[in-house]
Amino acid sequence: MIQGIAASNGIAIAKAYQLVTPDLSYEAKPIQDPNKEVERLDKALEISKQELEKIKAHTKKEIGDEHAEIFSAHLLVLSDPELINPIKEKINSDNVMAEVALDETANMFIDMFKNMDNEYMRERAADIQDVTKRVKAHLLEVTFPDPALIDEEVIVIANDLTPSDTAQLNREFVKGFVTDVGGRTSHSAIMARSLEIPAVVGTKEITSTVKKNDMMIVDGIEGNVIINPSDDELATYKEKQETFARQKEEWAKMKNEPTKTSDGEQVELAANIGTPEDVSSVIDNGGEGIGLYRTEFLYMGKNQLPTEEEQYDAYKSVLEQMDDKPVVVRTLDIGGDKELSYLDLPKELNPFLGFRAIRFCLENEDVFRTQLRALLRASVHGNLKIMFPMIATLEEFHQAKAILLDEKEDLKKEGISVSDQIEVGIMVEIPSTAVIAKQFAKEVDFFSIGTNDLIQYTMAADRMNERVSYLYQPYHPAILNLVSTVIDAAHNENKWVGMCGEMAGDPIAIPILLGLGLDEFSMSATSILQARTQIHDLSIEKLASYKDKILSMGTAEEVVEFVKEKTE
Amino acid sequence: MIQGIAASNGIAIAKAYQLVTPDLSYEAKPIQDPNKEVERLDKALEISKQELEKIKAHTKKEIGDEHAEIFSAHLLVLSDPELINPIKEKINSDNVMAEVALDETANMFIDMFKNMDNEYMRERAADIQDVTKRVKAHLLEVTFPDPALIDEEVIVIANDLTPSDTAQLNREFVKGFVTDVGGRTSHSAIMARSLEIPAVVGTKEITSTVKKNDMMIVDGIEGNVIINPSDDELATYKEKQETFARQKEEWAKMKNEPTKTSDGEQVELAANIGTPEDVSSVIDNGGEGIGLYRTEFLYMGKNQLPTEEEQYDAYKSVLEQMDDKPVVVRTLDIGGDKELSYLDLPKELNPFLGFRAIRFCLENEDVFRTQLRALLRASVHGNLKIMFPMIATLEEFHQAKAILLDEKEDLKKEGISVSDQIEVGIMVEIPSTAVIAKQFAKEVDFFSIGTNDLIQYTMAADRMNERVSYLYQPYHPAILNLVSTVIDAAHNENKWVGMCGEMAGDPIAIPILLGLGLDEFSMSATSILQARTQIHDLSIEKLASYKDKILSMGTAEEVVEFVKEKTE
Repeated sequence: MIQGIAASNGIAIAKAYQLVTPDLSYEAKPIQDPNKEVERLDKALEISKQELEKIKAHTKKEIGDEHAEIFSAHLLVLSDPELINPIKEKINSDNVMAEVALDETANMFIDMFKNMDNEYMRERAADIQDVTKRVKAHLLEVTFPDPALIDEEVIVIANDLTPSDTAQLNREFVKGFVTDVGGRTSHSAIMARSLEIPAVVGTKEITSTVKKNDMMIVDGIEGNVIINPSDDELATYKEKQETFARQKEEWAKMKNEPTKTSDGEQVELAANIGTPEDVSSVIDNGGEGIGLYRTEFLYMGKNQLPTEEEQYDAYKSVLEQMDDKPVVVRTLDIGGDKELSYLDLPKELNPFLGFRAIRFCLENEDVFRTQLRALLRASVHGNLKIMFPMIATLEEFHQAKAILLDEKEDLKKEGISVSDQIEVGIMVEIPSTAVIAKQFAKEVDFFSIGTNDLIQYTMAADRMNERVSYLYQPYHPAILNLVSTVIDAAHNENKWVGMCGEMAGDPIAIPILLGLGLDEFSMSATSILQARTQIHDLSIEKLASYKDKILSMGTAEEVVEFVKEKTE
Repeated sequence: MIQGIAASNGIAIAKAYQLVTPDLSYEAKPIQDPNKEVERLDKALEISKQELEKIKAHTKKEIGDEHAEIFSAHLLVLSDPELINPIKEKINSDNVMAEVALDETANMFIDMFKNMDNEYMRERAADIQDVTKRVKAHLLEVTFPDPALIDEEVIVIANDLTPSDTAQLNREFVKGFVTDVGGRTSHSAIMARSLEIPAVVGTKEITSTVKKNDMMIVDGIEGNVIINPSDDELATYKEKQETFARQKEEWAKMKNEPTKTSDGEQVELAANIGTPEDVSSVIDNGGEGIGLYRTEFLYMGKNQLPTEEEQYDAYKSVLEQMDDKPVVVRTLDIGGDKELSYLDLPKELNPFLGFRAIRFCLENEDVFRTQLRALLRASVHGNLKIMFPMIATLEEFHQAKAILLDEKEDLKKEGISVSDQIEVGIMVEIPSTAVIAKQFAKEVDFFSIGTNDLIQYTMAADRMNERVSYLYQPYHPAILNLVSTVIDAAHNENKWVGMCGEMAGDPIAIPILLGLGLDEFSMSATSILQARTQIHDLSIEKLASYKDKILSMGTAEEVVEFVKEKTE
């Protein structure tokens, strides 16, 4: 059994699919028959073509034409006589294995193209490199995996899953996944929850332990992985799987219920989304609002900034789908771990402590103003709230708000209608802002606590860095004290406080946060029904009575122990 | 006039010395007489030899034999007929300029040596590269600068100064320095203060503005640099220089005075040091203790970890020199911006949020235990206090202290005497620890607030990153609130609180910190007398009455304005 971090609820049982670049080394041996080598090559080329056609079709369907183009280019390479003929000639003239002829010929072209001072030719070099790997894999008769090639029920095993990997995962066949790296806030974990696929991340060793076609159990509730389980284990986990399914049915009954504690206090359960397409899942899961619309996705995966019109369409779509329910849109938060290649920002030594989010926007006002105009124009289509990320000083908030008001005035002058009900708030994700929340509370309309960043800054521990991930402690009393400071400061000024970090959907954190007085919990849409069920059984009065005790504790461990005991 | 950051007090007037790698490009032209080229080469070789001899002697004297060795290797290269003869032959055979023959021959050897799988040969390649640059500079008749070559009064101009540059600066001749990059907490700024050389850093443009032999005024008090001043300006600054000298004389009178406020409250003024050699300046400047002994220097600039004996000698020396005055030794704080090549730690994406200081020591117990043993053994020679850096959780403190007690017990069993009066405290430089200082105060003997890091984490802004340096705000109300929280928590448990960040010696921060109740101020030794003079004129009762007002302010600007007004 391998222990990892429980990243997405549920139990999956299936065989392993290794999404890992295979070992493509080989020993060059003398050959008997050059014709046999040419035959082997033709066969490898044919399989590679079939695979690339499949990947291309899948990509077109799942992601779009533009992304599928790259595979058209790869297919062209495979059919290019200027590349293929020289390989065959080399097999015959040098009397060498197909692998050797392939490598030498491909490398010659790659070197040649790479050294040309021409972006187009350098891309061709990269294409040849990618394609050669796939052909060589088939010559060596090893699998060259791709998420698009999965056509039976599997558990995907990987070092990590990139956004483009997860975009291609087919929910029909991918029953779960397990990675070496990552934590609960890593991209792959967030994706798993949004796809409702059981997942365990940060196992450190899964790719080196699992072998091809090994049978696996993934327990995304406890964070366990069992390889080649015994019959007893299989039986146990099948039962657990059924229990979980029944539990989900129970949760589903809460879809149209209000989110009320056992003593009648109402809070809001909202969802974090990245695109307008995510809204349907929010509605299906009974979300009462959008607590965080991450607008970065509009800026990513393309070659230029999105236009005002593109943004307007996206914001309008989300607002309309949500009817009059609140939609909190966070303005652009790039930098840190999110790069935009076309902006060509300088590399930083500590990007998480660098030039990102509002810092970038205040220095690149044109980019910022375009987004604000799109938001203001969309505001008439629903219940929009605008939120600025990474605010560390009051001056930054003043500047950002002044630019917003300036754009609003301009729009009004142009005769374009803008809602007058837009609340303007900030993310509380930098310790300085939490510490002087009292001063901020006088000026903002609301706070949303971004725990993912707040925790990493407060603990001075990069949440992506495995070596210090043990310091990423949501229940550390310092985090809870800061959260409490923010809530008290806001309530004192009759403002509301949400939380849009991963912590907001965590069953251990929820009772604590209720006790501290949090008003809005924004989480993965798929966590909402479970959270609502949990909250129905909790008494806010009782939880509030634990507040002082919890805030004076010394360690995260004490807090967890206490909460578990009190809520059992 | 160029504006930068005032990094070290005082006024300097002298001509510029550009410590900048010169442009070594040239245009290859046909030559008339090969013999002339050989002559030019011989002359350039001769000057280079003389310079290297000078640098070698200087390095030996200032830093030590080991470091001087590299220049012996460079001298050998210059006398090696296997390198020099082929250059001369090439001049004659190819009929080319000496520069061309030098470049081509040297590059051939460099390529050859670099590609050998042998560390020794790769170092030879680096030697040839260094030496070739110097010879080429003399062929092109441009200066190839080196701090060791300075033999007249100058102001050093550089992009930045590395620790090895500053180690070589000759105080007799270097009257000041100005850099493009850096802030008040950068290495070069700290060195300038410790050498008592006026300095302005972070000018962004000094290396591109100043020309060779330009006359300069460096105003390290205001952070101004004037290039080729007028007679009027010269007169003004000479007067300012004299005023400053008189002021220093005034300060010097405070050397043996107690550090008392005008209403009779006593605080401690201590110094930050890096080596036992720094202690004499602490005593000369009337330091009442060492508030921070950075032990990293023992581990840096060598090829292996320091032995227990080497460490014991250093700690003993500092303790003995300080008599019975308190000496706070910080255990190893590597990682972040301080690397140790021989430990081969993995590269991190955000080193400031990474595996450093106590995090490293708790995972590398052998390294940690060696240091603790050396400290415990040295404890009988003075008034030792041990301080753990980068503590983020109570668990870390418990672990570190347990290891310390374990080593103490072992030493006692071995019959080695250890003081029983050693206080054990922590750096407060991570926000989490400041927030729950109340919980920590029950367990530690003292706190020392490390503002350099505390500010960068609290503001989520890398203090080395120019793009976000405007967010490095010592007077931000959040920082002051955290400092106040720490002080109140400690005093509530009858523990003392020091501060060993740059903020502790800052004339604007001192009145605020006095008002908040700080007990010990640890700073550059050369700032102590000025601080003592300032404190003598301040009333702690009055300053304490501003506390609530300052802590409820919204911005750093408000704080500074208020403090300036109240202390004028």
